[in-house]
Amino acid sequence: MRILITAGGTSEKIDDVRSITNHSSGRLGVAIANAFTSNFATIDYVTTKNAQKPEGENITLHFISDTKDLAETLTHLLTTNRYDAVIHSMAVSDFTPATSLSEAQLQTAFNHLITQSDAKTLSLDELQNWLSELKKQEISDKKISSDTDHLFLVLKKNPKIIHLIKKLQPSTLLVGFKLLVDVSFSELFDVAMKSIKQNSADFILANDLIEVGTTKHHGYLIAKDGSYKEATTKNEIADLIKTTIITATKF
Amino acid sequence: MRILITAGGTSEKIDDVRSITNHSSGRLGVAIANAFTSNFATIDYVTTKNAQKPEGENITLHFISDTKDLAETLTHLLTTNRYDAVIHSMAVSDFTPATSLSEAQLQTAFNHLITQSDAKTLSLDELQNWLSELKKQEISDKKISSDTDHLFLVLKKNPKIIHLIKKLQPSTLLVGFKLLVDVSFSELFDVAMKSIKQNSADFILANDLIEVGTTKHHGYLIAKDGSYKEATTKNEIADLIKTTIITATKF
Repeated sequence: MRILITAGGTSEKIDDVRSITNHSSGRLGVAIANAFTSNFATIDYVTTKNAQKPEGENITLHFISDTKDLAETLTHLLTTNRYDAVIHSMAVSDFTPATSLSEAQLQTAFNHLITQSDAKTLSLDELQNWLSELKKQEISDKKISSDTDHLFLVLKKNPKIIHLIKKLQPSTLLVGFKLLVDVSFSELFDVAMKSIKQNSADFILANDLIEVGTTKHHGYLIAKDGSYKEATTKNEIADLIKTTIITATKF
Repeated sequence: MRILITAGGTSEKIDDVRSITNHSSGRLGVAIANAFTSNFATIDYVTTKNAQKPEGENITLHFISDTKDLAETLTHLLTTNRYDAVIHSMAVSDFTPATSLSEAQLQTAFNHLITQSDAKTLSLDELQNWLSELKKQEISDKKISSDTDHLFLVLKKNPKIIHLIKKLQPSTLLVGFKLLVDVSFSELFDVAMKSIKQNSADFILANDLIEVGTTKHHGYLIAKDGSYKEATTKNEIADLIKTTIITATKF
């Protein structure tokens, strides 16, 4: 069996000394990799520098830092190898820094916007055009000067990585992950089902950060038909995913 | 001899799953700690989770995550213990997230600002008031929704930590650090001298990121009178700092 696992959390560069980082210890990814014994599965494991790393002769590590790296690495792996399953547990940045403005720069840009506009108030279109113009400015990314009381960071949305997986390899079995914070089960379930539809996922491992600890970890493995199974530790989640994959792929 | 060393890089929380992180491997801090042999100096070493850590019976580790933590920990240590020297090499966040806005929220806030203002263009005062008002809004910090093409992060300036050190312990010897990116020596020197004056530092270790590698590391240890010595590896920098401290404190 050949599996692709992603784990850890991406970092998007703001400048040469700062990044926006998505937290993920990678502990669950390691538990999942370890659930597949070495004589049973070959694993390509895509992760980030600060996450925990699994060990095993059957495991090849691939390191990425930002979402663009991740897209390139996954594209390479998914077009080169046929995977029985892809377990996408990595915390991926939804946004990446586009530009930054000091107070003085924001004042200039905003006044330019007001004087350009005929109407008394701003439409969403005018706002979005203004944002595109900001992005085209020459921004030096070396180290943003701290000579301002407030800094205004404009972030633009990243393409969804999970959406890429089934596009590149429609025949693979996709287990996606969804993490929310302090929500009702019904909201967690609805967001998971939405992700299943939007990304053609076969299963989503849904969890709430308030129920995640070092070993204690409450997860719901939700299937396309809305049925689900629960697990309460990282190792239980890992075993649940493994047995579900084996059953679903009839391996 | 009793020394306080700070190393690594702080992380400022955006929400429960993302932070803005200042990069620093902590390798130089470890080299500096190791330059002081264990029978010679007792060291309090303040650092961050992902940075490299020194080992030694004479070294006590203190972990912090954000700038507020760092200020509290340094205040506690500097008011409890008398240090012969403080070597402040940590990469500290200049800014911390104050609020975030989706496109729709920015449009609403902008329009509120336009209708409030009498003048045709915005003054810096009006902009600053607007930014302070934004901060007072109830912002849930659980997990910012990604349902917007652009996200705006308003960051506010952090109090300068280095400035705190001599205020709390005027008698200590302070070695501050200054990292710029791809600048001329003359600009690096000027910024270092400015930091010496503003923060009452005794020395600044000034370096340019483009001259920093895993072991190769070009640094200038600049004194209050503008004289300086150069070093070209992390170990050389560590030894230079140590001998300079010993000479200056006449230990």
